[in-house]
Amino acid sequence: MKTHIAGSDATSIRLRGRDLVEELIGKHGFTEVLYLLTCGRLPTPGEARVLDACLVTLMDHGWTPTSLIARLAYDSAPGQAQVGIAAGLLAVGDVFAGTMDGCARLLAEGIDKSDKVAWCREVVQAHRTLRKPIPGFGHPFHKPDDPRPPRLFRVAAECGVQGHHIALLRALGEAVDAGYGRHLTINATGAIAALLLEIGMPVSIMRGIAVVSRSGGLAGHLVEEQQTHAAREIWRITDEHIPYEDPPA
Amino acid sequence: MKTHIAGSDATSIRLRGRDLVEELIGKHGFTEVLYLLTCGRLPTPGEARVLDACLVTLMDHGWTPTSLIARLAYDSAPGQAQVGIAAGLLAVGDVFAGTMDGCARLLAEGIDKSDKVAWCREVVQAHRTLRKPIPGFGHPFHKPDDPRPPRLFRVAAECGVQGHHIALLRALGEAVDAGYGRHLTINATGAIAALLLEIGMPVSIMRGIAVVSRSGGLAGHLVEEQQTHAAREIWRITDEHIPYEDPPA
Amino acid sequence: MKTHIAGSDATSIRLRGRDLVEELIGKHGFTEVLYLLTCGRLPTPGEARVLDACLVTLMDHGWTPTSLIARLAYDSAPGQAQVGIAAGLLAVGDVFAGTMDGCARLLAEGIDKSDKVAWCREVVQAHRTLRKPIPGFGHPFHKPDDPRPPRLFRVAAECGVQGHHIALLRALGEAVDAGYGRHLTINATGAIAALLLEIGMPVSIMRGIAVVSRSGGLAGHLVEEQQTHAAREIWRITDEHIPYEDPPA
Amino acid sequence: MKTHIAGSDATSIRLRGRDLVEELIGKHGFTEVLYLLTCGRLPTPGEARVLDACLVTLMDHGWTPTSLIARLAYDSAPGQAQVGIAAGLLAVGDVFAGTMDGCARLLAEGIDKSDKVAWCREVVQAHRTLRKPIPGFGHPFHKPDDPRPPRLFRVAAECGVQGHHIALLRALGEAVDAGYGRHLTINATGAIAALLLEIGMPVSIMRGIAVVSRSGGLAGHLVEEQQTHAAREIWRITDEHIPYEDPPA
Repeated sequence: MKTHIAGSDATSIRLRGRDLVEELIGKHGFTEVLYLLTCGRLPTPGEARVLDACLVTLMDHGWTPTSLIARLAYDSAPGQAQVGIAAGLLAVGDVFAGTMDGCARLLAEGIDKSDKVAWCREVVQAHRTLRKPIPGFGHPFHKPDDPRPPRLFRVAAECGVQGHHIALLRALGEAVDAGYGRHLTINATGAIAALLLEIGMPVSIMRGIAVVSRSGGLAGHLVEEQQTHAAREIWRITDEHIPYEDPPA
Repeated sequence: MKTHIAGSDATSIRLRGRDLVEELIGKHGFTEVLYLLTCGRLPTPGEARVLDACLVTLMDHGWTPTSLIARLAYDSAPGQAQVGIAAGLLAVGDVFAGTMDGCARLLAEGIDKSDKVAWCREVVQAHRTLRKPIPGFGHPFHKPDDPRPPRLFRVAAECGVQGHHIALLRALGEAVDAGYGRHLTINATGAIAALLLEIGMPVSIMRGIAVVSRSGGLAGHLVEEQQTHAAREIWRITDEHIPYEDPPA
Repeated sequence: MKTHIAGSDATSIRLRGRDLVEELIGKHGFTEVLYLLTCGRLPTPGEARVLDACLVTLMDHGWTPTSLIARLAYDSAPGQAQVGIAAGLLAVGDVFAGTMDGCARLLAEGIDKSDKVAWCREVVQAHRTLRKPIPGFGHPFHKPDDPRPPRLFRVAAECGVQGHHIALLRALGEAVDAGYGRHLTINATGAIAALLLEIGMPVSIMRGIAVVSRSGGLAGHLVEEQQTHAAREIWRITDEHIPYEDPPA
Repeated sequence: MKTHIAGSDATSIRLRGRDLVEELIGKHGFTEVLYLLTCGRLPTPGEARVLDACLVTLMDHGWTPTSLIARLAYDSAPGQAQVGIAAGLLAVGDVFAGTMDGCARLLAEGIDKSDKVAWCREVVQAHRTLRKPIPGFGHPFHKPDDPRPPRLFRVAAECGVQGHHIALLRALGEAVDAGYGRHLTINATGAIAALLLEIGMPVSIMRGIAVVSRSGGLAGHLVEEQQTHAAREIWRITDEHIPYEDPPA
């Protein structure tokens, strides 16, 4: 067995067949090398800009389980940013932030159908029958429309992606509105799923992209935590609002 | 108490006083927004390029505790990239990858001394007396010289940083060689400490930057793990090389 | 909202309605208080002994992803046992060690059927049709029979449990052998699922019991790691057996 | 290199030289096997009862960073108890719950001094000079006295331990009161440090014991979280009490 990710000897370090010092440092940014490591080749400038747009979109949204946990864990391990960030990232998952997989799987399946309108209708019908939400649609706060998808689609267009997956997501959106008889917004994770597919990123990698992005937001939270010690306040108000009581007999 | 990191309402999301959709997505990349979240303002293009160079340098080095752990944890939680990455990041710390803090603290202390040559000599003398390694110097594999620092210094120069911290690190390097009577290389974490100080990053944030960078490398490892299942091989060879034996009576 | 788990004031600490100092410390052991915290009442001596038998069974099995990860993480964070143990526990899950849930859900469903033999036959048939393994059966190393289930059943009988879930698991085992035309052992997680149901533990708690048990095994591994530094050896042999190679062009 | 923790073959599993099925399951409880795995031999009944008392003392105290984090992480990974418990355990450390190490190191150092009264006086003097708290003394809520140490000392006496470390801790307590001119309580971690030394547990293992104990408390919290969803409430009240505001210009 071999690994093709990275290796080093006394005088050089190689990443995916590239010399770190000669070919990457100072020549390609973090986003480009992230693409190299996950997709196996350096991205075009347009692909890199699309990936940057997706990464920036997911970095932070203020108080969420990820940031609450990171603050509390860092307060218990001062100076150990890896403990705060790792603990917080454990809350990225099937419930929050790690949910673009579902939409991406759907789009990857539909992209080769000859009659896409019919396929969209069937997908909506199937989810309604099972009373399951369609991944990539709806948002608890951003109503009627999540402001991020239109911006992401515009960036993708500027970057010259082919746009087939984005078009399919929009078509699915029309079928959703028709099928449910009311408007459900395409949400940020839906749009990101489409954009990442446009730049050739395999579905199985997307959760990891969300995790990397969020680690950056958590770094910001840890900086503020050093100053405000919000963790102590979160603890105090929890104690106050959810007091202990002996269980009912 | 307030938070100034991020917040949202029905129609907008704000990060550190900026509108995510209008001002950031598609206009600033991940590296720039990471700087915004941790340092409180958007970086100049030169600062962003220096930060990118530091992030890229630390992303991955092949088999290390971080990548071994990430592979093993992901194999136990397939599809849950956050589990693999979080577990792996817990190995960033005082021993590996999280070690630029020490060198940065030293440089931040020395930068205001009037007689820097004398200060360098004293620092070397103090560490020799305590038989403690000087943070930022020496490398187990890269001998005589770590190939990354010269490249990082060149990038910094191209980006027009002032260079005072880099000059201090070089001066310290000369004092190290003189004091120990042999050449010890400035290593990558030493160079990164100097570069991050050049772009105004507080010492208390640097560990977090290393964690964010490494999360990108781990994303690459998880992609390969899906194909090669190295975790099973690591398990198998450990069983073979470190067998169980009843304890001696 | 209230919490009924634990609370304290200046002079006392209460756990689930009990005074920690007056009623628990020195009067009830860890296993009994674990039952109190998870099931809401103190166990009978028999129930406590059954839970102890289950906890002891899962504590450790030598090299597994949990112990490999714990060793590697602890080597990177010396003296920080919480980092080693937490990292290792992340590998308890759907693949390893956390698998009694599936068998327990099956048994909980079958226990109320009037014709249990028919139900067992149907369960086997359904899993064969879907080509899915039946949770609680089969073992990669322990063939023809896992040595733990007979011992666990004996302990349960000595402790005076009713035995309905154990009987159902045995009946399912006969249906498995008949349905597959060859013998598949009841494995440890299957037996533990039945025993925990016998002492009234809800299915939704069982994964947590496995995690607590395994934390004890990992504590043992960290003790040995302090002496042998196996992590460094695991790293070295991985480097040797899975070398880096540039990706094929 | 060998491991002496655990191993298995087709028909048996061995832990530290014992046959799991024949010698441990149903014959020794979790606490005894934890002692076996960490200390290398089975404990006497008295030693086991002392260890049980220590484990029970640390299991849970209601809302603390550990329980807050575990609740939030579990809410994001429903059914994955290992994620909730592992995330929570990361908050056991130098700040909370993992603090018996310091007191134990102190006692282990003092136990061989011929003039213990003088040694106690010096320790107090040294800490006062350095303005450092003496580990094992003082408590933010339990004043004037932590109710747990007297109970723990009574259990230890009933179990027939020699009592030299407990006597030393008491002597240190008298020197503390005299040196500071006011009463500082011996706290639970101080008492536990003394008790664990009495049963021959190495200082380097104690942090791990705290982690194992706390994992049991967190299992209880996850059970309640399934019913009350306190995590959502913690999130909601944090949003309310610590709102986002654009940073000051």
